[in-house]
Amino acid sequence: MIKLYELAGKNNLVFSPYCWRVRLALLHKQVEFSGVDTAFTEIQNISNGEFKAVPVLHDGNFALNESFDIVEYLEEKYPLKPSLFNSNEGKALAKFIETWANTLHGDIAKMAIADIHDCLQEKDKGYFKTSREKFFGNNLESIQSENHETAKVNLLSKLSILDTYLTKSEFISGSTPLYADFIVFGTLKWLIETSQVFQVSHFSEHVEKWFLKINQMYCGET
Amino acid sequence: MIKLYELAGKNNLVFSPYCWRVRLALLHKQVEFSGVDTAFTEIQNISNGEFKAVPVLHDGNFALNESFDIVEYLEEKYPLKPSLFNSNEGKALAKFIETWANTLHGDIAKMAIADIHDCLQEKDKGYFKTSREKFFGNNLESIQSENHETAKVNLLSKLSILDTYLTKSEFISGSTPLYADFIVFGTLKWLIETSQVFQVSHFSEHVEKWFLKINQMYCGET
Repeated sequence: MIKLYELAGKNNLVFSPYCWRVRLALLHKQVEFSGVDTAFTEIQNISNGEFKAVPVLHDGNFALNESFDIVEYLEEKYPLKPSLFNSNEGKALAKFIETWANTLHGDIAKMAIADIHDCLQEKDKGYFKTSREKFFGNNLESIQSENHETAKVNLLSKLSILDTYLTKSEFISGSTPLYADFIVFGTLKWLIETSQVFQVSHFSEHVEKWFLKINQMYCGET
Repeated sequence: MIKLYELAGKNNLVFSPYCWRVRLALLHKQVEFSGVDTAFTEIQNISNGEFKAVPVLHDGNFALNESFDIVEYLEEKYPLKPSLFNSNEGKALAKFIETWANTLHGDIAKMAIADIHDCLQEKDKGYFKTSREKFFGNNLESIQSENHETAKVNLLSKLSILDTYLTKSEFISGSTPLYADFIVFGTLKWLIETSQVFQVSHFSEHVEKWFLKINQMYCGET
């Protein structure tokens, strides 16, 4: 059976945007898989240290990482299962959306970096704190408290494009959700699952409605 | 034959982003049409004043405006001609790209509003100057000179998403250009055709390369 190595915090919380993307892709494709909870500091144990980041997918003896590479592999390997792109243009849409959605990650990190730290397994906290504080040149609490409001304004401003778009389309991919939807969902789910203050209701109307629909369809949450 | 009423400045310059979009859509679809140069102040004469803006498409007795509505009409009416979307996801891609591209228009207006005024037919200049100066609360020369640099930085920053995307894809729509490409091209062509200082070489590498390719394919310019 396919194994998906996913970043896991305390209480088995999956909270990497990229892991969410691939998890929803697997659910959509209806291929059986089992998730393997993986701490940051356990990634080095996967495939004898071949990968620096999760998600990692094991399918028999084949292993790969990078979320887009994984979903392209799934699409090619399981062509009779429900498609993640439906067409070449569906793949183009997913690639553009991925480029756009990845520009939200910096804002989300600033909004919730200390909260993310609190979600980690104990054994990951030292590594996370040291690496992120070095990257941002400040301590986690200050990064979050000093930047939260500005980063939130930036995030919601960027999301206004999606809100406008969703006035004209039920899902990003059209009348049914496809991988382009899962990309943005993974990004926003990361924020929702980790932030102690930001809630789904803080999204604008159409983003909130869309998010809740995907959450219900693929995560069974209402 | 189909008639396309297009905004025309002096020397028959077409310079509305929406008119460019539809012009390229018609060229791509290979349906015969004739462009009708239209000044701002002549729009009221089309179809007995039915429309407030161009492009307006006349196909026999049928007339409509709004660029996206026009291309959806063309796609439905001429299904055997080359498609503008190729698939439902191609239409979704075009709609998302349209929402994104329209956020560039404010920056472009600020970069070139006085230059745009200089491109107009004499009979349009009074109307344009009065309406735009009222909207911005300043005179055209000041709007452009005070905002050009900031608006240019904003535009290029927004376009960085497109540049990143175009490192992975030859065209926005994939391996061949479709309406999603024409949307962004129309927006940027508007700037290139009107600005006295901004040139194609000011785009980042992949946007420049993509722009020149479309320009050559559909406008015969090298």
